[in-house]
Amino acid sequence: MNRWDTGRIEAFSDGVFAIAITLLVLDIDVPPSAYQHLFRGFAEQWPAYLAFATSFMTIGGIWMLHHAVFRRLRYANTAVMRINLLLLMTVSFLPFPTRIVAEAIESASAERSAVVIYGASVLVISIVFGLLSYAIARDPALLQPGVSAREVRALVRAVQPNAGFYVGFTVIAGVAPRVAAFGFLASSIAAVLRTRGDSGAPGAEPSPG
Amino acid sequence: MNRWDTGRIEAFSDGVFAIAITLLVLDIDVPPSAYQHLFRGFAEQWPAYLAFATSFMTIGGIWMLHHAVFRRLRYANTAVMRINLLLLMTVSFLPFPTRIVAEAIESASAERSAVVIYGASVLVISIVFGLLSYAIARDPALLQPGVSAREVRALVRAVQPNAGFYVGFTVIAGVAPRVAAFGFLASSIAAVLRTRGDSGAPGAEPSPG
Amino acid sequence: MNRWDTGRIEAFSDGVFAIAITLLVLDIDVPPSAYQHLFRGFAEQWPAYLAFATSFMTIGGIWMLHHAVFRRLRYANTAVMRINLLLLMTVSFLPFPTRIVAEAIESASAERSAVVIYGASVLVISIVFGLLSYAIARDPALLQPGVSAREVRALVRAVQPNAGFYVGFTVIAGVAPRVAAFGFLASSIAAVLRTRGDSGAPGAEPSPG
Amino acid sequence: MNRWDTGRIEAFSDGVFAIAITLLVLDIDVPPSAYQHLFRGFAEQWPAYLAFATSFMTIGGIWMLHHAVFRRLRYANTAVMRINLLLLMTVSFLPFPTRIVAEAIESASAERSAVVIYGASVLVISIVFGLLSYAIARDPALLQPGVSAREVRALVRAVQPNAGFYVGFTVIAGVAPRVAAFGFLASSIAAVLRTRGDSGAPGAEPSPG
Repeated sequence: MNRWDTGRIEAFSDGVFAIAITLLVLDIDVPPSAYQHLFRGFAEQWPAYLAFATSFMTIGGIWMLHHAVFRRLRYANTAVMRINLLLLMTVSFLPFPTRIVAEAIESASAERSAVVIYGASVLVISIVFGLLSYAIARDPALLQPGVSAREVRALVRAVQPNAGFYVGFTVIAGVAPRVAAFGFLASSIAAVLRTRGDSGAPGAEPSPG
Repeated sequence: MNRWDTGRIEAFSDGVFAIAITLLVLDIDVPPSAYQHLFRGFAEQWPAYLAFATSFMTIGGIWMLHHAVFRRLRYANTAVMRINLLLLMTVSFLPFPTRIVAEAIESASAERSAVVIYGASVLVISIVFGLLSYAIARDPALLQPGVSAREVRALVRAVQPNAGFYVGFTVIAGVAPRVAAFGFLASSIAAVLRTRGDSGAPGAEPSPG
Repeated sequence: MNRWDTGRIEAFSDGVFAIAITLLVLDIDVPPSAYQHLFRGFAEQWPAYLAFATSFMTIGGIWMLHHAVFRRLRYANTAVMRINLLLLMTVSFLPFPTRIVAEAIESASAERSAVVIYGASVLVISIVFGLLSYAIARDPALLQPGVSAREVRALVRAVQPNAGFYVGFTVIAGVAPRVAAFGFLASSIAAVLRTRGDSGAPGAEPSPG
Repeated sequence: MNRWDTGRIEAFSDGVFAIAITLLVLDIDVPPSAYQHLFRGFAEQWPAYLAFATSFMTIGGIWMLHHAVFRRLRYANTAVMRINLLLLMTVSFLPFPTRIVAEAIESASAERSAVVIYGASVLVISIVFGLLSYAIARDPALLQPGVSAREVRALVRAVQPNAGFYVGFTVIAGVAPRVAAFGFLASSIAAVLRTRGDSGAPGAEPSPG
């Protein structure tokens, strides 16, 4: 059996999440011609802000869920390690479709495709996270003492509606891209609001992280 | 009740602060035409250096305050977690208005708007940090043993004058943008100078961070 | 004798690996002209995706191996410290040849050179990692109690075939660059799949990382 | 008295060092026109590689010295905290003069100014690090038990020749910029080679970092 301590996996994953989330701002720009009427030029960048906020909340929600899941692990096995690397790859890819949406949403011909591409990217992240949770739930020896497989399955279930939303909005994006774009924002905020920490019994101290 | 250990929140927040603060340098550039008289071209970038230093000190000050506040926490609740994510979003956004100021301050028509946009961005960061402190002060169960709610309120109060300054300078920016630009720099340096660490009693050892 | 604790080396190395792996996405871009037929424009970026996935898996595999090696160390000596810094330099360089491949593979005259340059870069990373393992194996006093020099040599040997592959594919790149490009991807995925964690005996707990 | 635990200062500083060192690669680029003769175009970027290697080794050396100094601290005071923030600002600025050198060294009129600007930037980093060491040496209460003020002064002295080199090469840069450019590289490599870890007595274990 192969084991990996979770400390450095969390540190590396936090690094990738933190960088991907902070690189999103590089996708926002005011074109030089807009400096003459800067307030208007600034306001006209709203699709870029929408894409920024959506991707920020999406990655932020993934980070919170990752935190909640890995706190319940004693160590990782090689399958978890590999799927986690795949998850990081899909998350670190997200600034690219974010930039596409930011640049395309003003042009009628491109915004449809852009939002579909964005939705598909988020859907892939959601599926890989589902795989990660599944790999963990399959091997109860990975769990911290006192954590039941049932609790992990509950965490998995908490992700599933999200995947459903993402499929739905990606389909909607083909018809009404702006509705779908706001749907992805709402969906990412909902994911952040749904994620729960430890249901600490009185006196229970979180283990040193 | 929901609990989150602070170790990984601090690690992730430090990551976002460190990246946002280091990305600021990407907003500075010498245009190719300036390479013929490079010293002059380098010196003419002073608005970019001003914006760099102001944003660096602003984020650095937020980081120091974040450090001071989270050292006083045993764990976070879900409200703190969410407001912290919002804080990170506003901080990671700052390189964008920094770039706007760096590019706009030479053009008379744009510099007014640019500094107002910058001031508003910093003001939002300051307000969200106020919310974070407020959420912490509301739940004394989050505090380390021996930390009083009064100590946290004192930290909150230490931020408030800052918010006042930011409102003031944002208003001034509409009339005298350059005065306001230097005001934001002074204000960010003042924030760094005001932040205090632990008032360690003799023999008191900081808890392992 | 000079000693360095491994905690901060791992933290710094993880930072560089995480940033290098996340910067790769900046090498992907859809040209403005492709927004009219965005799905096709998105699909035509396939060399950029291939380069992104290859470099992501290469750096990811290096990180996993780095993790596996450093977990077996009690502390580092100055030679390990310096070679590790050299390793980080070669890894942080990789986004540049990745960008070259992403931009060159469509042009027949450039793709040959681009893939050779890429292969040489990966080969250098592989050689420097070999040096690192060699420096560790030379000083058994660096190892954790219970870790044999034999175990470290096995880790070293696990890297060697990789170096062989990289030489081979770099030569192939001169004749059939696309075959070599997919070869590098396959090789990087194989490296991820080959890396093993701790062969934990029952009851053995990974030491706190 | 104000105290700050060093754990999070080290984590934040490592983040800034790691990001600044990894952003350096973004300053290297092959112009589109060079793709026709890619090997030559790649080779012609040598000033960019020189600048990359010099800045990488400079930041790497600063990181190693930072590591060596902070391992000797029990906690930081507010002066150390502020000077450290200033140090991070000067380090995170370095990718900008690095880019200037990379772009200017081919043009005879600009290379002189570029290397002088670069040298001045590295000199400022060196001076701020001197200030940091000085602030630490002034307050022996900050030191780990068993660490003498003499040991810290020795670390300070180890930096001083460096500052001298940087002044010298900055002056030389006004006359012979290419000699100075290679001088900065040699100087940064020398700094990495001079830095020492713990002089561990037999059986002495580095404290958990």
